[in-house]
Amino acid sequence: MTSFELGQNFTVQVFGQSHADAIGAVVDGLPAGKRIDLDEVFRFMGRRAPGKNAFSTARREADQPEVLSGLIDGVTTGAPVCAVIRNENVRSGDYANVLTVPRPGHADFPAYVKYGGWNDVRGGGAFSGRMTAPLCFAGALCLQLLRERGIEVFAHIRSIAGIDDAVPDPCCPDLEALRAVAQKEFPTLSDAAGQRMRSAIAQAREEGDSVGGVIECVAVGLPVGLGSHMFGGVENRLSAALFGIPAVKGVEFGSGFAGCGRRGSENNDPFRLREGRVVTTKNDHGGVLGGMTSGMPLVLRIGVKPTPSIAKPQQSVDLIAMEETELSIRGRHDPCIVPRAVPVAEAVTAIVLLDLLYDNN
Amino acid sequence: MTSFELGQNFTVQVFGQSHADAIGAVVDGLPAGKRIDLDEVFRFMGRRAPGKNAFSTARREADQPEVLSGLIDGVTTGAPVCAVIRNENVRSGDYANVLTVPRPGHADFPAYVKYGGWNDVRGGGAFSGRMTAPLCFAGALCLQLLRERGIEVFAHIRSIAGIDDAVPDPCCPDLEALRAVAQKEFPTLSDAAGQRMRSAIAQAREEGDSVGGVIECVAVGLPVGLGSHMFGGVENRLSAALFGIPAVKGVEFGSGFAGCGRRGSENNDPFRLREGRVVTTKNDHGGVLGGMTSGMPLVLRIGVKPTPSIAKPQQSVDLIAMEETELSIRGRHDPCIVPRAVPVAEAVTAIVLLDLLYDNN
Amino acid sequence: MTSFELGQNFTVQVFGQSHADAIGAVVDGLPAGKRIDLDEVFRFMGRRAPGKNAFSTARREADQPEVLSGLIDGVTTGAPVCAVIRNENVRSGDYANVLTVPRPGHADFPAYVKYGGWNDVRGGGAFSGRMTAPLCFAGALCLQLLRERGIEVFAHIRSIAGIDDAVPDPCCPDLEALRAVAQKEFPTLSDAAGQRMRSAIAQAREEGDSVGGVIECVAVGLPVGLGSHMFGGVENRLSAALFGIPAVKGVEFGSGFAGCGRRGSENNDPFRLREGRVVTTKNDHGGVLGGMTSGMPLVLRIGVKPTPSIAKPQQSVDLIAMEETELSIRGRHDPCIVPRAVPVAEAVTAIVLLDLLYDNN
Amino acid sequence: MTSFELGQNFTVQVFGQSHADAIGAVVDGLPAGKRIDLDEVFRFMGRRAPGKNAFSTARREADQPEVLSGLIDGVTTGAPVCAVIRNENVRSGDYANVLTVPRPGHADFPAYVKYGGWNDVRGGGAFSGRMTAPLCFAGALCLQLLRERGIEVFAHIRSIAGIDDAVPDPCCPDLEALRAVAQKEFPTLSDAAGQRMRSAIAQAREEGDSVGGVIECVAVGLPVGLGSHMFGGVENRLSAALFGIPAVKGVEFGSGFAGCGRRGSENNDPFRLREGRVVTTKNDHGGVLGGMTSGMPLVLRIGVKPTPSIAKPQQSVDLIAMEETELSIRGRHDPCIVPRAVPVAEAVTAIVLLDLLYDNN
Repeated sequence: MTSFELGQNFTVQVFGQSHADAIGAVVDGLPAGKRIDLDEVFRFMGRRAPGKNAFSTARREADQPEVLSGLIDGVTTGAPVCAVIRNENVRSGDYANVLTVPRPGHADFPAYVKYGGWNDVRGGGAFSGRMTAPLCFAGALCLQLLRERGIEVFAHIRSIAGIDDAVPDPCCPDLEALRAVAQKEFPTLSDAAGQRMRSAIAQAREEGDSVGGVIECVAVGLPVGLGSHMFGGVENRLSAALFGIPAVKGVEFGSGFAGCGRRGSENNDPFRLREGRVVTTKNDHGGVLGGMTSGMPLVLRIGVKPTPSIAKPQQSVDLIAMEETELSIRGRHDPCIVPRAVPVAEAVTAIVLLDLLYDNN
Repeated sequence: MTSFELGQNFTVQVFGQSHADAIGAVVDGLPAGKRIDLDEVFRFMGRRAPGKNAFSTARREADQPEVLSGLIDGVTTGAPVCAVIRNENVRSGDYANVLTVPRPGHADFPAYVKYGGWNDVRGGGAFSGRMTAPLCFAGALCLQLLRERGIEVFAHIRSIAGIDDAVPDPCCPDLEALRAVAQKEFPTLSDAAGQRMRSAIAQAREEGDSVGGVIECVAVGLPVGLGSHMFGGVENRLSAALFGIPAVKGVEFGSGFAGCGRRGSENNDPFRLREGRVVTTKNDHGGVLGGMTSGMPLVLRIGVKPTPSIAKPQQSVDLIAMEETELSIRGRHDPCIVPRAVPVAEAVTAIVLLDLLYDNN
Repeated sequence: MTSFELGQNFTVQVFGQSHADAIGAVVDGLPAGKRIDLDEVFRFMGRRAPGKNAFSTARREADQPEVLSGLIDGVTTGAPVCAVIRNENVRSGDYANVLTVPRPGHADFPAYVKYGGWNDVRGGGAFSGRMTAPLCFAGALCLQLLRERGIEVFAHIRSIAGIDDAVPDPCCPDLEALRAVAQKEFPTLSDAAGQRMRSAIAQAREEGDSVGGVIECVAVGLPVGLGSHMFGGVENRLSAALFGIPAVKGVEFGSGFAGCGRRGSENNDPFRLREGRVVTTKNDHGGVLGGMTSGMPLVLRIGVKPTPSIAKPQQSVDLIAMEETELSIRGRHDPCIVPRAVPVAEAVTAIVLLDLLYDNN
Repeated sequence: MTSFELGQNFTVQVFGQSHADAIGAVVDGLPAGKRIDLDEVFRFMGRRAPGKNAFSTARREADQPEVLSGLIDGVTTGAPVCAVIRNENVRSGDYANVLTVPRPGHADFPAYVKYGGWNDVRGGGAFSGRMTAPLCFAGALCLQLLRERGIEVFAHIRSIAGIDDAVPDPCCPDLEALRAVAQKEFPTLSDAAGQRMRSAIAQAREEGDSVGGVIECVAVGLPVGLGSHMFGGVENRLSAALFGIPAVKGVEFGSGFAGCGRRGSENNDPFRLREGRVVTTKNDHGGVLGGMTSGMPLVLRIGVKPTPSIAKPQQSVDLIAMEETELSIRGRHDPCIVPRAVPVAEAVTAIVLLDLLYDNN
């Protein structure tokens, strides 16, 4: 298991760099005979694609993957599915000075030390957010296989710059409203909240600054008992994957950190019977008890830090000259990557949930 | 890799159940020729042991592990180190009704479904917090191997029931103060804060209730560049392990969720030179940039939910009769497991950090 | 995955050294609710135990494992099964000079270099054949779970010192005859051949020498399609495990090396229908085609080199003095480990086959 | 770890099918800053390429990989190296009837059952020998990284159709002679033996038949102590990989199966001092003692069965009609794949040896 690989029962191997010839993914171990709707896969990937609107980087890409193997007439064969996305519209010059002056908040400095200066620094290289495009390809396959089992995964922007979206009912979320989020240009439940978030992003951009936020992910239809003891729990496996999304600095489930300030009598979710099924009357446990799914909706949140690439001048150090300097980052950068990270969160969650479903016991 | 196993370059395999004959751990893959101070290991484990004071369960155990293999005269041989801790002082009767009426907030319900009723339910079985004792054994070994490389790992109670401890300086933590925490009966930096937390715990206990909290972990002396791309990052590997501590519902690094509400210009940490070393002037990144250590102190927090076992009556369902019922949990239970989870957080963090150090590139 | 661990869907973690306090195994990931006949497990382990007869080492051990966890009333709980076997009857003095003068054919020399002299050298330490006792424990569990699915695994001595046993029909092996082998003091199909092998062993012993041989393993009842592409094949996974039995220097399937000298028209096995099932009319493929089981009996052979510990004087080098010397090995040693390795081969094969059965696709 | 993946410290993920758009490999986890001579890589791959001479299939391919990522100016960056080889010159019609009538000796039958008929059957699909081309790409990278450490890996045809090549001295192999083999059209040490093998192949082809053989692999320059205990041994990890080469039915080390018929006093290799180094005076152990390298040349042999695709009519079963039938295989097939498998054996051995070198202890 290397750093670009995810999964136990099937694996997703990502490859590429932001400005290499291509990026891509190999999805190995999926069952044979599963029909994949590639158009839907491409539409899903389109939700992450840059250049859609004023709120994201001006870089535009087709981002249409070429599927090289693994499918015949859109049906899985049991052989690894390899998808390649060519990198186009690349202007490496924008990043020329990054080599020696690390950008605050970026991987530049530790990568320089770790790789002895040999890592690809153009556009973030293999640390670029662009590496999430092949994750979306893999996740889109998994979402279709999950839906076959009655499982759906949704995400929305929970907050940006301190502005909150509406909160889905954690016990009985409005599925139509959640499904509608995926169709929106700006993935919030409340359009009014979304509008205020956009204003905050626009203002940050104007000031050469950036903002972060929180994404909430909800999955419904999960059977009881996915996940396992100790390190094999749903939270372990999801967090191990979700921290792979660039800029994620926190992961919490259910009532999360807020619930940790409460009394047990408040935070515990009572069991009741509803139509012959055991349910909880509220869902502060976020659908996970003892590392296993409870049958209630899975609810998790990830904290996405403000984009570290900002136009404002910042202090840094020239690593060759070993002297302090000031850095102004030019180039095309999202003042807020949260909206584009929403489908990525869905994709990563879907990959892990399908992997958990394939556990044999 | 199964659910009771942790690590890539060496592994910690935990076994046992709360009321089985024994619990234990096999630590496989440590280098040969390392001298282990077993007395120090036992002292470390003593910090987690129950029954130390009024704030924890009345169950008392020697919890002294017997090391069956892997060491000769306290020196590692390259063979797996197996430590066994006998379970004593067990009163299974306390837990008799748990089988059919799941305790809210516990693993009982999904475990019942997953294991078809065959899992050990006595004292939580293999989901018990007691399974963290062998983790402390393994972690104590790792702490000694880390110290040999100049790395120290500390934890303290950051908050309980909304009461905050003092906060260590994330750039230059007071190491003496942090080291002193490990000697205290109640592991806070501020004794005054600790006293108020104890009162809150005592009050919850009196009311048949429980409280949760947040633990903060700090590691110093780490080289630059531990961790790797995407899923191989420090945050990925630490969170995958930390969610293995029972009751943990959130993990965050550096400024964490709070930082996600800020502007990039606020949250980015500028680089400067100090005595020829590249440092950041503040540490909102928590010592991790792009999944790799930056050389600054690693700072993380885990949210620990209030102990789900409370004396207050709770609603539940009889899974055999399939009818709603009320449940009152008797037996010896911590009204707050946060203090005892502090050394566990250190242990788990130490295991992962040593594993990251053993990565070959 | 470390060196003492086997398995993907469940794992067997072995620990201990020949002269440590104990050896043992942790079997993690077995399904819950499986009834294990521990008496049968102990009887199986007895087949490997030393000191049974004149043909094996004089070391006698109870070798009765203590099961510390994972079972309640002999039924699996889903928690790891840990079994510990205490080492008794140990005379370390016999091995005192091994430290500095490596025994030809043994792990001593590379282990000395690799572990810097810190490895346990008493009785072979963690390289001892004794480490196969916990493998037999784990294998015995697996054999019972396989039998539940109609799968049986047999082994017999195929040859010792150039003397051949009878060969089971690879298409329709005589199951009664194979089952009877497990009851014999000397595990051959032909008692006459066995008698001649015993004579050859006795003669080697008298001359201070040793002999090797070949073990054949046959498994029946396997479904079609276990195993997978390329590195996931049945042969890959079995050989990776079988070379873990000390002294094994070759593994072959079906017609093996002999078949490689033939024409394709000879070696290919034609398909026919028998009672509605697709079978082959002969079984030179050994039950594996393209890495997957064909439904025909699995047939494999392992070559076991002559025991390297011999009384005859041998040339070696004193690694401290760095001068050439002569070595005479005293102590209790099998002049032929092949008979005792027969149940180990069954055990290891059973572990891998069960693991293959648990593959999800 | 899925079936198309090899390696622990770095990984080789193969993808594709014989008649898909492409095949390829992702090599993830190589250190950064290593200069790769891609021309040499392509020359190495040319040794495996089909259509070179009268002794191999008439299918001709450029087989020139396109490197999509991981290298900048031929230097590794620490990001995964992905190489894609387009499939050209494909005539799927040749294989049309394979779907329902499995070819004796091929993966067809178990694959049909396992994948429910959804696997790609064109040209063997993902079971095709063509999948070894990307392995050669990965192996060629590894050979260069090994050479940097003074390690060389050679292979030659040890025998075909019972005709033996010259045998290299297992203690002091003639490196010039071994290096020369790689330049030959037919990779034997003895050209006379090679000529006789070619005649045997030509005769088999004329008779619509095929032949198999044995490949011997020798690696020199290995340090003492690679590999580890039990399942982590050099033999375990090499055999697990080598059985991934299609048609391999046996793997043996050093004196192998032949040595198992000997006495210990014959088979043990005495230790002596030569110029201050500990060596053995002969090398029946094949460079591996107790699973670890001894510093002597690594010597292993793999048995390659006769190509199962033969023109001669064979018995089989129509899996749809479920009736017995006769099968005549048309299309382009090697009457002997042994010569082309020689570089594949080198490649696979190189991958595993580099992986062993990257073990941290």
